[in-house]
Amino acid sequence: MDADKIMDICVRRGFLWRSCEIYGGVGGFYDLGPLGVALERGIKDLWRELFVVQEGGYEIDTPTIMPEVVFVASGHVAKFHDPLTDCASCKKSFRADHIIEEAMGRNVEGLPTEELDALIADEGIVCPECGGALAPIRYFNLMFRTSIGSTSTGGATAYARPETAQGMFVAFNRIMRTMRPRLPFSIIQIGKAYRNEISPRQGLLRVREFTQMEAEVFLDGRNIGTHPRFDTVRDETLRLFPREEQLKQDGVIVEMPAGEAVDKGIIDNPYLGYYLTLSKFYLLAIGIPWEAIRFRQQLPDEKAHYSRDTWDVEIETSYGWVEIAGHAYRTDYDLTSHTRVSGKDLTVFLPYDEPKVEIVRKAVPDKGALGKQFKSAAKEALEFIKERNADLVKVKDDGKSLEAKIGDEMVDMVPFIEVREVEEKVAGEHIVPHVVEPSYGVGRILWCVLEHALKEEDDRTYLALAPHLAPISCGVFPLVNRDGLPELAKAIEKALRDAGIDVIYDAGGSIGRRYARCDEIGVPFGVTVDAQTLDDGTVTLRERDSKKQERVPVDDLPLVLGVLLAGEGDVEAGCGPCGPCAGCE
Amino acid sequence: MDADKIMDICVRRGFLWRSCEIYGGVGGFYDLGPLGVALERGIKDLWRELFVVQEGGYEIDTPTIMPEVVFVASGHVAKFHDPLTDCASCKKSFRADHIIEEAMGRNVEGLPTEELDALIADEGIVCPECGGALAPIRYFNLMFRTSIGSTSTGGATAYARPETAQGMFVAFNRIMRTMRPRLPFSIIQIGKAYRNEISPRQGLLRVREFTQMEAEVFLDGRNIGTHPRFDTVRDETLRLFPREEQLKQDGVIVEMPAGEAVDKGIIDNPYLGYYLTLSKFYLLAIGIPWEAIRFRQQLPDEKAHYSRDTWDVEIETSYGWVEIAGHAYRTDYDLTSHTRVSGKDLTVFLPYDEPKVEIVRKAVPDKGALGKQFKSAAKEALEFIKERNADLVKVKDDGKSLEAKIGDEMVDMVPFIEVREVEEKVAGEHIVPHVVEPSYGVGRILWCVLEHALKEEDDRTYLALAPHLAPISCGVFPLVNRDGLPELAKAIEKALRDAGIDVIYDAGGSIGRRYARCDEIGVPFGVTVDAQTLDDGTVTLRERDSKKQERVPVDDLPLVLGVLLAGEGDVEAGCGPCGPCAGCE
Repeated sequence: MDADKIMDICVRRGFLWRSCEIYGGVGGFYDLGPLGVALERGIKDLWRELFVVQEGGYEIDTPTIMPEVVFVASGHVAKFHDPLTDCASCKKSFRADHIIEEAMGRNVEGLPTEELDALIADEGIVCPECGGALAPIRYFNLMFRTSIGSTSTGGATAYARPETAQGMFVAFNRIMRTMRPRLPFSIIQIGKAYRNEISPRQGLLRVREFTQMEAEVFLDGRNIGTHPRFDTVRDETLRLFPREEQLKQDGVIVEMPAGEAVDKGIIDNPYLGYYLTLSKFYLLAIGIPWEAIRFRQQLPDEKAHYSRDTWDVEIETSYGWVEIAGHAYRTDYDLTSHTRVSGKDLTVFLPYDEPKVEIVRKAVPDKGALGKQFKSAAKEALEFIKERNADLVKVKDDGKSLEAKIGDEMVDMVPFIEVREVEEKVAGEHIVPHVVEPSYGVGRILWCVLEHALKEEDDRTYLALAPHLAPISCGVFPLVNRDGLPELAKAIEKALRDAGIDVIYDAGGSIGRRYARCDEIGVPFGVTVDAQTLDDGTVTLRERDSKKQERVPVDDLPLVLGVLLAGEGDVEAGCGPCGPCAGCE
Repeated sequence: MDADKIMDICVRRGFLWRSCEIYGGVGGFYDLGPLGVALERGIKDLWRELFVVQEGGYEIDTPTIMPEVVFVASGHVAKFHDPLTDCASCKKSFRADHIIEEAMGRNVEGLPTEELDALIADEGIVCPECGGALAPIRYFNLMFRTSIGSTSTGGATAYARPETAQGMFVAFNRIMRTMRPRLPFSIIQIGKAYRNEISPRQGLLRVREFTQMEAEVFLDGRNIGTHPRFDTVRDETLRLFPREEQLKQDGVIVEMPAGEAVDKGIIDNPYLGYYLTLSKFYLLAIGIPWEAIRFRQQLPDEKAHYSRDTWDVEIETSYGWVEIAGHAYRTDYDLTSHTRVSGKDLTVFLPYDEPKVEIVRKAVPDKGALGKQFKSAAKEALEFIKERNADLVKVKDDGKSLEAKIGDEMVDMVPFIEVREVEEKVAGEHIVPHVVEPSYGVGRILWCVLEHALKEEDDRTYLALAPHLAPISCGVFPLVNRDGLPELAKAIEKALRDAGIDVIYDAGGSIGRRYARCDEIGVPFGVTVDAQTLDDGTVTLRERDSKKQERVPVDDLPLVLGVLLAGEGDVEAGCGPCGPCAGCE
């Protein structure tokens, strides 16, 4: 695997390139070119197929710019930051932990500011660019900040979202009301997110604008131990790299069925186990080899404080193991946080099978006294007692008072109530749902797909992309540019397009060079029109990876290619209506 | 058409709602719910089918946050602003032109600041909210501003893009190099764009974050008079509202073939004519009635100064005629602007059929004198003369000098050259492509589709969405919740899902209420399982608009629905394998 080679193909052939090249590029921002857009669409569509069509998730699309209050609630305003140190001479800023790590060869991520400052002072660490003195560490929030609207005193602070997740938590109540789902259910979103990285690097792996695919699975926290469909995936083997193995000197990846991992408590609960197996299905379907996948459990100091267990999905690349997805069990942190800040009830009512009778202490109004005191306003007083019943019980117990505005007067209501134990039928209870969050990074997945597709052999370079993911499905080539072959090839191009097959027509240079050009961008099939086509109406159908060629009647091409692109059939066996293969039987 | 009614359905049933409802909403930002996401996907997919698959455009995806220099070049930093006035008392800000218009009933958009200030003073216009005095007008840039990265002196100014277009202009060279297209060709993009509107209003029509579908069609400006495929659409009738008609007291919409409109010079050129017909095909395909569409030519004071002709596409709604797309002939403004600011060559080389011989004036070096003067550095001097040849001719003509650094010395090179007329073979020429830009707003189109789909009759409300656009294709209902009907209905639900048909299962309430619920969100078909199903294996298939019902064998359902959803067949005629219809013959 060779990152430079892949980036060269990406830029030269139109998968992706640094944004704003004519202005010298902008660090951490990439354009997807025509091939990149098509490949990314395949990656997103397959994920949507899993999470929306098969899992039945509710897909929504919320704004990328959100007001500050949302990120106050989520904790991003307070905590989503990196420690920076500025050079007094050249004014550049650096990740303090990164330059200490470079200087000392020691991972210091997560250490408190004072310790980092002390290390810089003690070790005499200076600006890596100009040798200047480094200023004390400051925290830099990684959200892109902007403001909405205008008043003479400025607009309202807002941020480009650092994750799609918050849009889904904030819309939770609306989804409950419109779709009336039962727990567990999931809200999903595929969209842009932003992190104002100080030092974007490693190509697509650490960028400032990226696409996420996230699912927020809402569930009854008391039932975290039972997932409705976990039994269907129990026997699926996972490649786990649990906490214990990571802490060993010679820790290894453990292959184990999902069910066993959950039963043994290695994976906290069957929800995490279920979504890890979904992740396995997904990655295999987009062509990542099994040995290049592992599920790594986050160590206690990596995990968000509210997460009970988090498993990253990692793929092996030329940069080492790269995190492409995370699966966090976030408990009720998200909905509780938004409840606290918004003051809105984000609970779900779960009816009991049978209503329960409970003894509760109630503030019971003394109606006679009320009528005497308030006359026609007595109804208002009763309303107040009903609404603030629990508060009234509490102040009465505490010997305090609680004033209400009845009519035009403020009156302490405690003298007008009595606290009594009463029997009450309770139909169910309100709970704050817990959340398990599978979260995928599209750009990183795209990069991993390309790294694992790149093959070099016999002086040729090709991308062995799965046929259903390849941006272009088939090349069409006239062997020579005369004798009516180009016209015939053009007709085939049109017939394939009409059949919904993405085609590239290429008549330039030797047939070998044209195959090579298509191989390099992963076109899985090639059709060559030659003299024999004029005689017997057949063309050569070439398969990219094996380079095997078969003759196929022109009229059968749309059907044969359709079968092959669906991942069925076998070109070598002369697949399609013209020969025997599993796909057509 | 009733905007409130549609917004009520949208919010209540899950098409869309104001973002961050639990925090009181944020003006100008909307969430798309599950039904809205599905409907929007249909709207985008059909556009992509036209502009990418059929037209062969190169689809790219560029960042939504771009550095300031891009918008300096595009003119947005200098000109993309609204005139604001602030209230001295309540500090609120208002569009100055809007409050003058409200006060005086006169459209003053586009008047210079001084005139607007004078009108406010002369007419005694005060703050519409609190009656306070209004401050002099200031310009407010409508781009969301942010900054990228951090240095101790701050980050680099950047903006959320106000249109997807600039990403395509900036990537022009890269597309030329990777895809090697010939003019005319188009780059397309579907993505988010942002405008920090002062007063977002009219629901989805004036929002702060929205999705655009834009095509930049690059062409040789000298050939603007001939579009390669215009002949295929010449005879298509367009509903035009040209400049002249708008200026008349009783101007009307003129129906005219595209060819005639171009020939008569009503539409500037066949490129605009071609893309207006594409717009017609598109809008009809997504269910906008013909009479609700018009193509309105922008008046001279509406048009961008660089545009030679611009046609808006407008749809009639409860808000009046709403612009949902624009078609501007932008000449070479965009690429020329980016060339000027980036210093990069954004021309295209067009070879002549035969190389031309031209007489040109050249600076010819006096090699003897050069050798004598510069010795071993003479080669450097020759290089300089080659590179700056045109400049040298000019300074010599003007009697000026031009110094070069040869070796370590600065030397005037004019004495070492002579200007001679020489014959030169010219293989072709470099041109800056012109641009025609079809630009569509997805949110506005979605709104117009909903407005025109809403039907109220016989005490029922339904959305007559085209079947291929409907977010959900089919309802499945057990007539009663016993006798095995739910199990049978569930099996049908699964069979339809497996066939790729989006289904909603509903067993709640009377069958009438269930039909009504599906009608309200535009589900085009409904399958009811009843006692007869147990006997003869048939179900009732109901069509939404006509309410007609037919009995169809359960086994035929996937095929019958497939045909109906593709817009073929006719449920009333007992379509599908079970009866005669155009779709199955």
